[in-house]
Amino acid sequence: MLPRGRPRAMGAAVLLLLLLLVVGFFLFGRDPDCKRRSWAGEEGTLCDRCLLTPRVFSDGLGTTATLDEDPYRSRNLSASSPQLLLPPKCEMLHVAIVCAGYNSSREIITLTKSLLFYRKNPLHLHLITDAVARNILETLFRTWMVPAVVVSFYDAEELKPLVSWIPNKHYSGLYGLMKLVLPSILPPSLARVIVLDTDVTFSSDIVELWALFDHFSDKQVVGLVENQSDWYLGNLWKNHRPWPALGRGFNTGVILLWLDRLQQTGWEQMWKVTAKRELLTLMATSLADQDIFNAVIKEHPHLVHPLPCVWNVQLSDHTRAERCYLEAADLKVIHWNSPKKLRVKNKHAEFFRNLHLTFLGYDGKLLRRELFGCPNQFPPGAEQLQQALTQLDEEEPCFEFRQQQLTVHRVHITFLPHQPPPPQPHDVTLVAQLSMDRLQMLEALCRHWPGPMSLALYLTDEEAQQFLHFVETSPVLSMRKDVAYHVVYRDGPLYPVNQLRNVALAQALTPYVFLSDIDFLPAYSLYDYLRASIEQLELDSRRKTALVVPAFETLHYRFSFPNSKAELLTLLDAGSLHTFRYHEWPQGHSSTDYSRWREAQAPYSVQWSADYEPYVVVPRDCPRYDPRFVGFGWNKVAHIIELDAQEYEFLVLPEAFSIHLPHAPSLDISRFRSSPTYRNCLQALKEEFHQDLSRRYGSAALKYLTALQQARSRA
Amino acid sequence: MLPRGRPRAMGAAVLLLLLLLVVGFFLFGRDPDCKRRSWAGEEGTLCDRCLLTPRVFSDGLGTTATLDEDPYRSRNLSASSPQLLLPPKCEMLHVAIVCAGYNSSREIITLTKSLLFYRKNPLHLHLITDAVARNILETLFRTWMVPAVVVSFYDAEELKPLVSWIPNKHYSGLYGLMKLVLPSILPPSLARVIVLDTDVTFSSDIVELWALFDHFSDKQVVGLVENQSDWYLGNLWKNHRPWPALGRGFNTGVILLWLDRLQQTGWEQMWKVTAKRELLTLMATSLADQDIFNAVIKEHPHLVHPLPCVWNVQLSDHTRAERCYLEAADLKVIHWNSPKKLRVKNKHAEFFRNLHLTFLGYDGKLLRRELFGCPNQFPPGAEQLQQALTQLDEEEPCFEFRQQQLTVHRVHITFLPHQPPPPQPHDVTLVAQLSMDRLQMLEALCRHWPGPMSLALYLTDEEAQQFLHFVETSPVLSMRKDVAYHVVYRDGPLYPVNQLRNVALAQALTPYVFLSDIDFLPAYSLYDYLRASIEQLELDSRRKTALVVPAFETLHYRFSFPNSKAELLTLLDAGSLHTFRYHEWPQGHSSTDYSRWREAQAPYSVQWSADYEPYVVVPRDCPRYDPRFVGFGWNKVAHIIELDAQEYEFLVLPEAFSIHLPHAPSLDISRFRSSPTYRNCLQALKEEFHQDLSRRYGSAALKYLTALQQARSRA
Repeated sequence: MLPRGRPRAMGAAVLLLLLLLVVGFFLFGRDPDCKRRSWAGEEGTLCDRCLLTPRVFSDGLGTTATLDEDPYRSRNLSASSPQLLLPPKCEMLHVAIVCAGYNSSREIITLTKSLLFYRKNPLHLHLITDAVARNILETLFRTWMVPAVVVSFYDAEELKPLVSWIPNKHYSGLYGLMKLVLPSILPPSLARVIVLDTDVTFSSDIVELWALFDHFSDKQVVGLVENQSDWYLGNLWKNHRPWPALGRGFNTGVILLWLDRLQQTGWEQMWKVTAKRELLTLMATSLADQDIFNAVIKEHPHLVHPLPCVWNVQLSDHTRAERCYLEAADLKVIHWNSPKKLRVKNKHAEFFRNLHLTFLGYDGKLLRRELFGCPNQFPPGAEQLQQALTQLDEEEPCFEFRQQQLTVHRVHITFLPHQPPPPQPHDVTLVAQLSMDRLQMLEALCRHWPGPMSLALYLTDEEAQQFLHFVETSPVLSMRKDVAYHVVYRDGPLYPVNQLRNVALAQALTPYVFLSDIDFLPAYSLYDYLRASIEQLELDSRRKTALVVPAFETLHYRFSFPNSKAELLTLLDAGSLHTFRYHEWPQGHSSTDYSRWREAQAPYSVQWSADYEPYVVVPRDCPRYDPRFVGFGWNKVAHIIELDAQEYEFLVLPEAFSIHLPHAPSLDISRFRSSPTYRNCLQALKEEFHQDLSRRYGSAALKYLTALQQARSRA
Repeated sequence: MLPRGRPRAMGAAVLLLLLLLVVGFFLFGRDPDCKRRSWAGEEGTLCDRCLLTPRVFSDGLGTTATLDEDPYRSRNLSASSPQLLLPPKCEMLHVAIVCAGYNSSREIITLTKSLLFYRKNPLHLHLITDAVARNILETLFRTWMVPAVVVSFYDAEELKPLVSWIPNKHYSGLYGLMKLVLPSILPPSLARVIVLDTDVTFSSDIVELWALFDHFSDKQVVGLVENQSDWYLGNLWKNHRPWPALGRGFNTGVILLWLDRLQQTGWEQMWKVTAKRELLTLMATSLADQDIFNAVIKEHPHLVHPLPCVWNVQLSDHTRAERCYLEAADLKVIHWNSPKKLRVKNKHAEFFRNLHLTFLGYDGKLLRRELFGCPNQFPPGAEQLQQALTQLDEEEPCFEFRQQQLTVHRVHITFLPHQPPPPQPHDVTLVAQLSMDRLQMLEALCRHWPGPMSLALYLTDEEAQQFLHFVETSPVLSMRKDVAYHVVYRDGPLYPVNQLRNVALAQALTPYVFLSDIDFLPAYSLYDYLRASIEQLELDSRRKTALVVPAFETLHYRFSFPNSKAELLTLLDAGSLHTFRYHEWPQGHSSTDYSRWREAQAPYSVQWSADYEPYVVVPRDCPRYDPRFVGFGWNKVAHIIELDAQEYEFLVLPEAFSIHLPHAPSLDISRFRSSPTYRNCLQALKEEFHQDLSRRYGSAALKYLTALQQARSRA
C-alpha cells in the first residue's frame, strides 16, 4: 500500500494543474475565431453572443481515434456532453454535397430533411450537381421556402476534367472523386465546410459537428471518422490490396474541411502527387476519393483530426459499427454506405431504418420554421406570402379556398429516372394529374398511350414513397422511361387541380401536349393518330389550334375497350358507352357535336359555347390553367375560355376518342354536392375570373360574361 | 478610471473562489444520489456509469425565475449547454399524466410520440385514467410494443372523492385537480416524478428536464415554470380576482414533483388547509390545481424550484411567452394551454403548430426503437416476434404475405367520441372495415343504417388526422355518436383485411353483428327488419344461426336506391341491378338461391357450398376471421367455412338486401389479377387453412378439402 500522504500530494498536483488551466482560460479564453465565425457579410455583428456562451474546459482531443481505442468512446456522448462550445445561434454553417441524377436527388432531400429537423443555425448548402439534379433541386428548394437556408449550385460538368484522369471502380463514378477538388472550387471567402455524402442521415444538430472544428490543432485540416470496416487492413480476401491507410483508415462520408488551411498547405498538389504515385501500382481507386484521402493521410498523419465515431456510423455490409453505437448514448449521423442502402443486413438494421424512414416520410413543409431572433432569414416572397395568409379572415366562408390558392406547394419534378423524348416536330405528351386513389390507372394508361407523358401527382411525403414502391414493383411502369412523374406535395384540404396541371404542363418536353384527365383511357391508336394529324394539318406552334379529342364514358368497371371508331359506335348504340357526362353535364361537351363526329371523315371546326370543356391537343406554350380554381368544378371550363379568348380554333378529330372509366366520386365532388357554401365559393371564383377576363380582353370577353349570367339566372 | 491593480485583485479573488469549487468538486463531487437514481429493482447495478459521466460545475440556480429576470435566460439554453449532469443512459424516468375521455386519449398519444422521439432513457408512464381512456390506452400501448416503456394505470374514479369537494370552473373539471393528490396515490417507492398535462409537446429529450431535479435545494419539493401570462397579476379586467400567487405565479402543465419530500413536508395537509381557506372568499378555483399550487407556494415560497422558461412555453390566448422563446436557442416543451389549442392566435403560431404536427402525423411504429445497451427493455412477445420476423426468408416468393401476417398493428379503438348503444337483447351492430379511399362511403352508410356501427379504419397516422377533420366537418357524421371508429395503423404492403374485421368485431357492443363490407349500402329498412327478425325467430346467442342478407350490385355510380324488395326486383328485371358478382364469381353467392329469394315470404335455410361468402348476421361471439388472409381473396370464404364447420345454420331473410356500389378496383385486386406469384401465395394460404381445419374438425372438415381439390383440378 502506498503511504497515506501520496494521494494527497497527487491531489495537490492535480489542483495546481487545474488552477493553471483556469488561469489560462481567463487569460486566453476569449475565442480568437469569434469574428471569423459570424455570418458572412456581417463580420463581427453577432460576436457579442460568443461571450455569452459559457466557456468550458476543452478536453484537448488530438490523438488518433481508432475503433479499438477511440478517445471519445469512453465518454458520455449524449447531446448534453459538456465538451462542446457551440457557435452563436445565428451563425451560418456551410455544407457541401455532390449530387448527380434522379436517385441521388431523392436521397439528398431526405438527408436535408434530417439536417433541417435538428438544426438551429442558418445553413448554406453548396450543391455540386449535374444538370438533372440541378433542375430538380432548384425547383424543390425554390418551392420549399425554408427560412434561413441558402442554396448555391456548382456545375459538376466543369469539375469532371479535374478528376477524370483518375481510373475509379467505385459505384459513385466521377462524382465521388469531386470531393477532392472542393477546396479549389468553393468560394475563397469560405473558410470551413462540412462535406456530406448523399446517403447519410442526421439524428442530431449539425452545429455540434461544426463545433468540432474548435478541436482542430493548428496543423489539422481535415476531420474524419475512422473507417468502421476492415477494408483497409487488407485481409478481407486473398490478394485484396487496398490503398494505403493509417490503420483502419478513415471514411469520407462526413468530412470537416478547413478550406483556407488546405489551400495554404498546398492540398491540390499534395493529393495529386500521392494519387499519381499510387496509381502506378494500384491502377485504379476502389472507393473513389476515400482511397486518395487515406493515402494522403498515411503520408501526412498530422493533417487529420479524428472525429468521434458517432458522427459517421457506417452501415456497410461487414460493418463493425456496433462497437461504436452500443456504447454511445447517442448517435449523430448514420451512413448507409452499402450499395444495398436500406436493405443492408444488420442485427440492428430495423433500428437504423426507423431513423431513416422518419425523414423519408416526414412532411417537408413542417420544416418551414423560422429561427427566432436571426436576421434576414426569409427566402424571396416568403414574408409577403406569410403576410397575405395572415390577412385572410378565418371566419370568411370561402377562407379554405383563399388559403388553398395562396399555398405554395413543394414540387419535386422528375421524381423517378426519366429519359426525355428525342426532339420530334410533331410529338405529343399526355398531360394529367392524380392523387394516390388513382394510382391503379397508371398501368392501363401506359398500355393505351405508348408516347411520352408528364404526370403531376399530389402526394404526401409518405405517399411519395409508396408510389415509388408501386412503380418499382410494376413491370409495366418500371419499363417506361418516357413517363415523367412530378410530385406536388399535399398541403391543405382542397385539391389544387389547376396548379397540378400547370406543373405537368410546364414539364412537357414535346412541341404538343394532350391535356387529359387520369380517369380517361385514350384509344390505342390515339398517340400515332395525333402525331399524324398534326403533321397532315401542317400545324406548327404559331398556329393557334386546339385539336378536340371526343370524350366518352363507360359505367362498367370491367369493360372491353373498343379497338376502333366503328367498335366504339357499336357500343354506343348498344348503350354500353355514352358520350361523356351526357346525363349530368351535357353542356360540357355539346359543342363537340357527337352526331357530326359519327359521320365525320375529316377534322371539323366547332365554336365555343358556355361551359365547354373538351379534352384538347395544343402547342406546349398554350395558356396556363387558372390556379384559383381549387377543389371540384369549372377548372377546365376556365382554361377553354382562355383558349377561345386567345382565338384558338377548336378542330374536332374524326378518329380520335378517349373513354372515361367509372370510379367512386372523389371527396371533393361529394363536398361540392353536399355543401351550399362550397357552391357559393365556386360561384365567387367564377365571377372573379370573369372580371379578370374583362380586364384583359375588354369587350371580346363580353360573351363569356353573358353566358355566365344566363347560367346564373337559370339556376 | 480604476487603478490598474483593482482588476488583478478581483481576478485573484475569482481564482480563489474557483479553486474552492474545484476542491469541493474533488471532495464531494461523487453523486450521492447515484444509487437511488438507477433502475427500480436493480439498485446500484448501473452505478458505475455515474462515474463515467463527466461532472461539471453546477451553476447553483436557486433564485426565483421570473419572466423579467429569469436566471436561465441569459445563458445559452441549447441542447449542449453544459450546466447539466445527465443521469446514466439506462436509468428509468417516471412520468405521470391524468387523462380522461376520447379526446384527451388522442392528445396523450401525440405527447407520448414526442416524448419517445427524443428520449434515450427507459420510461415509466403512470397514467391516471377514467374507464374510457384506460380502455383505449391499454390496447394502444399493448399493440404499440415500444421497447423500454412501462405503463401503469391508476383509476381516476377512485380519486374523485379526494378532490370533488373543491368547486372548480376550469374546463379540465375534476381531472385537473387530481394532480394535487399524486403524492398520495403513486407508489411509495417512487421518489420523483415529472407530471405533464396532455396538451404539451416535447421538442427535446426529457432526460434534460429530469436532470433539473439535481438543482433542487434541500427544501425544494416542486419544480415549475413561471406563468407566461398576466393572469395572476390580477389586472386582466375589472374586478378580475385571481387566486394568490407569487408574482406572475407558476404554470402546472409541467411539474417536477419530489414525491418523498412532499410526503415528509405534509403536503396533503398543507394544500387542503390553503385551499379551504381561500375557498372561503374565492368560492371556486378558476384554473383547477394551478390555483391551489400557487396559493401554497405564495405561502411557502421555499418549496418551489423555478425551472427555465423553455420547459413550458405557454401558448395561451394572451401569452407573453415570446419573451422566453425569442431569446432561447432551443425550445424544450410547448404547452397548448389555450382552450383553442392549435387554433390559438399567435404571431408564431405556425412555427409551434409545425412542431406539434410533426408528431401528430408521425408514424408511431418508427418509435419501436430499442435502447442500445439497456437490459430488459422488450415488452411481452416483442422479442419472439422479432425473432420470427428475422427468420423469414426474404427470397421466398410469399415473403410479403408471411411478414404481413406476423405484423402487429398499433390499434387505437374508439378514436372519436362514442356513445355505446343502450343494452337491447336484439340489437345489431354493422361491422366493416375501410381505408382512406372509401371514406366517401361513410355518409351514405350513415343514412342507410341508423343503428350502431363498429368500423375499423386502416390508416397512417397522418391519414387518421385527415379522417378526424373529415368527420368533424361532415354534419352527417359528426351528429352520429353510435358509430365507433377504430384506427388500425398501416404497416406493410398488403391490406390486413381479416385483422381489421376482427378489431371491428371485437369492439361491437350489441348481442348481434351484421358482418358487411364498406362498399355495400343496406336497404333503408334493414336495421329495423333485422332486429324484428331476430326477435321473431327467437334467436338467442346460444342458437348458432347466421342470417343471410342477399347481396346485389349496381354498375352505375349514380343510381336511385330501391325503397323496397319490389322496387329492387323491378330494377333487377330492367338490368339496372344484378346479383352480386354474377359475372365474375357466381359461386360466391349461389347458395343464397336468388330465384327462391324472389318468391320467399319466410326465412329459408340453405346449405354451404364451395366458395360461399354471403353477408351474415351472427351473434357477437361468433368465430373470428382467419388473420392469415391478407390482401385480396378468400378472406370471407374462410370465415363462412368456419361458421359451417361450427354448425351454424344459414337462414336467408326474405326482405333483407344490400347493394354493392361500383368503385375502381383496389390496388390489391389489381395486383391479384396481374401477378401469378400473388395467386400462388393465396393458394398456399388456402391449403394451410385446410390443414388447420382438418386438425380441428377431423373428418367433418373433409368436405371443404374435397371442394378445394375439385376447384384446383378445374383451374
